[in-house]
Amino acid sequence: MGLLGETVTQFLIPLAALVGIAFSLLQWFLVSKVRVSGGSGLDNGYKDRLIEEDEQEEGIDTDAAVVKCAEIQNAISVGATSFLFTQYKYLSIFVLVFSAIIFLFLGSAKGFSTKSEPCTYNPGNLCKPALANAIFSTVAFLLGALTSVLSGFLGMKIATYANARTTLEARKGVGKAFITAFRSGAVMGFLLASNGLLVLFVSIHLFKLYYGDDWEGLYESITGYGLGGSSMALFGRVGGGIYTKAADVGADLVGKVERNIPEDDPRNPAVIADNVGDNVGDIAGMGSDLFGSYAESSCAALFVASISSFGVTHDYTAMSYPLIISSMGIVVCLITTLFATDLVEIKNVNEIEPSLKRQLLISTVLMTAGIGMVSFFALPSEFTIFNFGTDKVVKNWHLFFCVSIGLWAGLVIGYTTEYYTSNAYSPVQDVADSCRTGAATNVIFGLALGYKSVIIPIFGIAIAIYVSFSLAAMYGIAVAALGMLSTIATGLAIDAYGPISDNAGGIAEMAGMSHKIRERTDALDAAGNTTAAIGKGFAIGSAALVSLALFGAFVSRAGIKTVDVLTPKVIIGLLVGAMLPYWFSAMTMKSVGSAALKMVEEVRRQFNTIPGLMEGRAKPDYAMCVKISTDASLKEMIPPGALVILTPLIAGTLFGVETLAGVLAGSLVSGVQVAISASNTGGAWDNAKKYIEAGASEHARSLGPKGSDCHKAAVIGDTIGDPLKDTSGPSLNILIKLMAVESLVFAPFFASHGGLLFKLF
Amino acid sequence: MGLLGETVTQFLIPLAALVGIAFSLLQWFLVSKVRVSGGSGLDNGYKDRLIEEDEQEEGIDTDAAVVKCAEIQNAISVGATSFLFTQYKYLSIFVLVFSAIIFLFLGSAKGFSTKSEPCTYNPGNLCKPALANAIFSTVAFLLGALTSVLSGFLGMKIATYANARTTLEARKGVGKAFITAFRSGAVMGFLLASNGLLVLFVSIHLFKLYYGDDWEGLYESITGYGLGGSSMALFGRVGGGIYTKAADVGADLVGKVERNIPEDDPRNPAVIADNVGDNVGDIAGMGSDLFGSYAESSCAALFVASISSFGVTHDYTAMSYPLIISSMGIVVCLITTLFATDLVEIKNVNEIEPSLKRQLLISTVLMTAGIGMVSFFALPSEFTIFNFGTDKVVKNWHLFFCVSIGLWAGLVIGYTTEYYTSNAYSPVQDVADSCRTGAATNVIFGLALGYKSVIIPIFGIAIAIYVSFSLAAMYGIAVAALGMLSTIATGLAIDAYGPISDNAGGIAEMAGMSHKIRERTDALDAAGNTTAAIGKGFAIGSAALVSLALFGAFVSRAGIKTVDVLTPKVIIGLLVGAMLPYWFSAMTMKSVGSAALKMVEEVRRQFNTIPGLMEGRAKPDYAMCVKISTDASLKEMIPPGALVILTPLIAGTLFGVETLAGVLAGSLVSGVQVAISASNTGGAWDNAKKYIEAGASEHARSLGPKGSDCHKAAVIGDTIGDPLKDTSGPSLNILIKLMAVESLVFAPFFASHGGLLFKLF
Repeated sequence: MGLLGETVTQFLIPLAALVGIAFSLLQWFLVSKVRVSGGSGLDNGYKDRLIEEDEQEEGIDTDAAVVKCAEIQNAISVGATSFLFTQYKYLSIFVLVFSAIIFLFLGSAKGFSTKSEPCTYNPGNLCKPALANAIFSTVAFLLGALTSVLSGFLGMKIATYANARTTLEARKGVGKAFITAFRSGAVMGFLLASNGLLVLFVSIHLFKLYYGDDWEGLYESITGYGLGGSSMALFGRVGGGIYTKAADVGADLVGKVERNIPEDDPRNPAVIADNVGDNVGDIAGMGSDLFGSYAESSCAALFVASISSFGVTHDYTAMSYPLIISSMGIVVCLITTLFATDLVEIKNVNEIEPSLKRQLLISTVLMTAGIGMVSFFALPSEFTIFNFGTDKVVKNWHLFFCVSIGLWAGLVIGYTTEYYTSNAYSPVQDVADSCRTGAATNVIFGLALGYKSVIIPIFGIAIAIYVSFSLAAMYGIAVAALGMLSTIATGLAIDAYGPISDNAGGIAEMAGMSHKIRERTDALDAAGNTTAAIGKGFAIGSAALVSLALFGAFVSRAGIKTVDVLTPKVIIGLLVGAMLPYWFSAMTMKSVGSAALKMVEEVRRQFNTIPGLMEGRAKPDYAMCVKISTDASLKEMIPPGALVILTPLIAGTLFGVETLAGVLAGSLVSGVQVAISASNTGGAWDNAKKYIEAGASEHARSLGPKGSDCHKAAVIGDTIGDPLKDTSGPSLNILIKLMAVESLVFAPFFASHGGLLFKLF
Repeated sequence: MGLLGETVTQFLIPLAALVGIAFSLLQWFLVSKVRVSGGSGLDNGYKDRLIEEDEQEEGIDTDAAVVKCAEIQNAISVGATSFLFTQYKYLSIFVLVFSAIIFLFLGSAKGFSTKSEPCTYNPGNLCKPALANAIFSTVAFLLGALTSVLSGFLGMKIATYANARTTLEARKGVGKAFITAFRSGAVMGFLLASNGLLVLFVSIHLFKLYYGDDWEGLYESITGYGLGGSSMALFGRVGGGIYTKAADVGADLVGKVERNIPEDDPRNPAVIADNVGDNVGDIAGMGSDLFGSYAESSCAALFVASISSFGVTHDYTAMSYPLIISSMGIVVCLITTLFATDLVEIKNVNEIEPSLKRQLLISTVLMTAGIGMVSFFALPSEFTIFNFGTDKVVKNWHLFFCVSIGLWAGLVIGYTTEYYTSNAYSPVQDVADSCRTGAATNVIFGLALGYKSVIIPIFGIAIAIYVSFSLAAMYGIAVAALGMLSTIATGLAIDAYGPISDNAGGIAEMAGMSHKIRERTDALDAAGNTTAAIGKGFAIGSAALVSLALFGAFVSRAGIKTVDVLTPKVIIGLLVGAMLPYWFSAMTMKSVGSAALKMVEEVRRQFNTIPGLMEGRAKPDYAMCVKISTDASLKEMIPPGALVILTPLIAGTLFGVETLAGVLAGSLVSGVQVAISASNTGGAWDNAKKYIEAGASEHARSLGPKGSDCHKAAVIGDTIGDPLKDTSGPSLNILIKLMAVESLVFAPFFASHGGLLFKLF
């Protein structure tokens, strides 16, 4: 037994979650002090004028601007909320159908038997019947789905609450704006991390009321929680990604390329849809996605632990090790956040990116100490871990290394991503430079950059896998994934900061605020592009570890001992699995392309038919563009969603667990590469464009200004990168995770009834 | 024993090879009847005028054009020859160093012992010493390298001999031009297939003088032949690919985009380099590549057979089954060729592509019968195949299915590729249509098309693997690969036809021939783009099967029984292996990009500094551009080459055979996808552009004409596709094959001395 008692553990975990929630509410309160209202907001405007006097000299009517900002914020919020609610209507149908499938498949695995049976891994004990597993897995699925949806929705609400506030704060200086955007990101990060932990903790205790001492059955059914989280994330990411990029690409193609008006110009009919998209795609989608990773890695770790010595000897504290790690993560991130919001003040545009980078480093260093403490207090000094049929002896400091290496691998991925996507370094500058010879070389260099950016993260992940796998088998990998996600609150904060700043810039432009404000929000946004790429790096890195852990858990639960590449069933699975990311990307990119074409036609139509639109005398029909994005996204998210959801069911039922294991391994090793390269290529193109636009160095000015041939070539690259970095790339995380967790949940069915095709012949 | 006696077999195989060589010489003779000479060629020019009278009406001086054609052809031929010789100088150094490495590594596996030892797989027999294996593997490597270089060189010679002849024949009509181009392709196809077979056959018999009854040792050392073939192919593909695309992209970026002059315009300084590139990249590189595949699949099959019952019972005919299949392939392709050149005449531009497609179908149908005959006559009705330590009982009709399914999978890949890259179908037309909204949507749709085009080929390959693996283990896969390559003569003929037509078009433009001629050569070329993509599809499909077979042979030779994904050593290999195609592509694409930038600067410089160049009064400095391409290609081929060559050595030596096995499997399943999608995306963009230029339908005309915004967007796509389809994509075949064959050759060393890093810790 470890040093920490069961009662203390039961108290500490929810406490940490509640502290996290309280902290996020505090941040929300601080953000809410920035007032965005026409009526009582006048005094606010007055104070601003005092703070920055040259604002007036530029002749901007600040009061009118505040009113305008409030209007636009409201339009974005309404658009995003209405889209999400429409999406949830469709999702609720999916959830009902899929719940039925889970119940029927798992129930039929043992013929809806209500008899208790000997446990699979501890045949000496008596476990609850298969029907209970079917029921509780379904309930866990529903809980996961609900929490995931809630995470995304709350994130969106906060982001649409914060965007105009960031714009208004930008009048006071870049530091104030930064803090507002960052605090809002933190609200989302802490709310999501705490919420996910709390729901999981409560669910386990509720399930325990029925399961009692049958921990094996309890933690088997809790895996449904991960499945629920990730399946919602899939549609959130894909639907949101198509929504946002259809609007973005459509707006840019007509506005920037054809009509030569700036980004986010209020005359562009697709501009509201574009800003709504940032919130439903990059915020709500990303929130669901990372929540899914978190839920799945916890479930994978808990499942493996339950069939290891922790579960067998009923060591509650050691069993809860994954949850305690997450609790510690919340505390560490809380301290880390203070460094950005209170301890250090940002005075200059150049300090933004270093400050965000520092957040990663601080949280990683502090968390390493935290992991050490948790490992020392919560774990017995020696224990055994289930390792595909055999037991592996593990020491507590082994687990310390497993979790830490995951954490540090995350940092390596984050820093590498930053290097390849920030315009402060040569890779992006080279891409910008290649625009001299036109769009074609820009694309060639950008693709090459994305491919190259895969190398270091893959080595990082490989080392993390090797060390954690060698030290503690699958459990090691699961906790390594948790380690990478332990600082999720900070990760999400700096990630959500990106779209909030992007929106803030959009609102500044639309509200007609001065060039200076726009420059500040642009600087925030450029740093945001990089942090968004870092966030995607974390998401994919953790997804790789998570899905490997889930894969291991699936193999254990399905009762296969080896996955030998040199058997026909496995190798074809591997090959087809490696193909799935391409199939999936083809679908999502084509969807964005087609939806963007429709958007282009509509925007063109409005420019051509609404008199006075170009001159700013008439208002465009924003709602029509919102509708196009909504319809396209809801229609187009179904085929890729079906591909991901159905593949494990078909592969498992028709070809059996070996082929399915091959499919999972193949999609994992191939999908990681596609996802990382797509995200980084897109991020690099976006920042290469921003590099030319900002013209901050002599080299950059030689390529610019806006509207030059180089800049036009850069805009083409940026547009191509949009679906890569915000639709197909990040959705791939979910592809690999979701297929793995789905296989894990359905493993008992596949093991007993799978491989129909081979049985027939 | 089969029905065919040993003596008959020993007679039939070389006979088939000699018939193939004779047939190719006949085709050469027929091509040579088209005279391209200034002096005595006048009467030829005269006759042409009689045949097509309106040529004169357009006021083209045909005699002068013939002289011009001869000049240009000569310049291309001289450029290509000089590049290849320069390349060979570098390669000879590589070959010497690598020979030494092979000798030292293999010799040291057993401490340079000269004592005979018990055989590995038949411990009852006595096998030749390890030192003999080192010596003969090195000799086989040298033979393979030489044959590969010869194959590429001869192909280039024929192509540069045929291009101007095709141009001149185009004056007589599209049918005549087609036959000339196709015959020339056939010369290369038959010469290469026959040559590869003959050298292998002779080598085996020479090695037998020493090895005698030790077939295991004999066929182990013969695997060096495959390694030699593929390592030359690597540099041929990569070097040639960089050469051709640096020139092509550079020429297009300045000529077509900036200066608005047509493709292949003689005023463009890079135009000769571009045409030289087609011959050194697409012809010599492709020749070496497919020869490598052929050599490796033969070697893999022979090696597995030698440790199976064929080898143990010394059944010569059954042992030679792979060679007999290839012999039969030559005969079948010979008959198939007659359908294109003699039995059916092409009168219309629209008949070109169907005729080429028919070649694939005819050869596949005939070959299926051929395989049936060979399997019935050459094989005993039942025998056993070595299957990772156990014996698998196989019947002769099982092998018939193995070979046939490889063959038909090739057809499926070919037809799918055609569907996705020919502008006769909707995928390419959709891509062309997306140019309406600019280059960005064109690129998005093109990438999506490439990703989508992976699906059917992967299922085709997966089914072929499953069937052949299930029926006859690794031997089944090796002969399935041979089946796909059995019609290599026809495959190469239609493949080489592409660059020849491309060059013919270039020569027509440069010689200032009439618009009509250019239209005909353009039609030939458009079909050539599709056949080139088909050829790449075959190359990658066969590479997948070949490398899987080599992988199996490696695992057998290294003495490991399973490659379990769920061990840390294997999974990290899998992950890193899946990353290698990206790393490799990043290198090659960046190389093309940088070299193209240099080319652009030089071309711009010439346009700016040579007075009268744009007006056609002064000649550009072609040689300077040739030099830039040559230098860039020789310098830039080293890093990607080193990556491929060193990876197995490093992985095997430091991490051992399990990790290396993972690397091979990972690079195989990931590389196939990248290669197919890159080739097809590039092919589709090229043909989308041609679709707009040709304006053959109302839809196409609505996008054109040349110089329209749509067309400009299409040109950007085409330029991006160039390095994808001609450099990085096709080089990936070699990456996956070469790493596998290298691992196989070095397996004894890795098995005895590998895994240093893990041994240390």
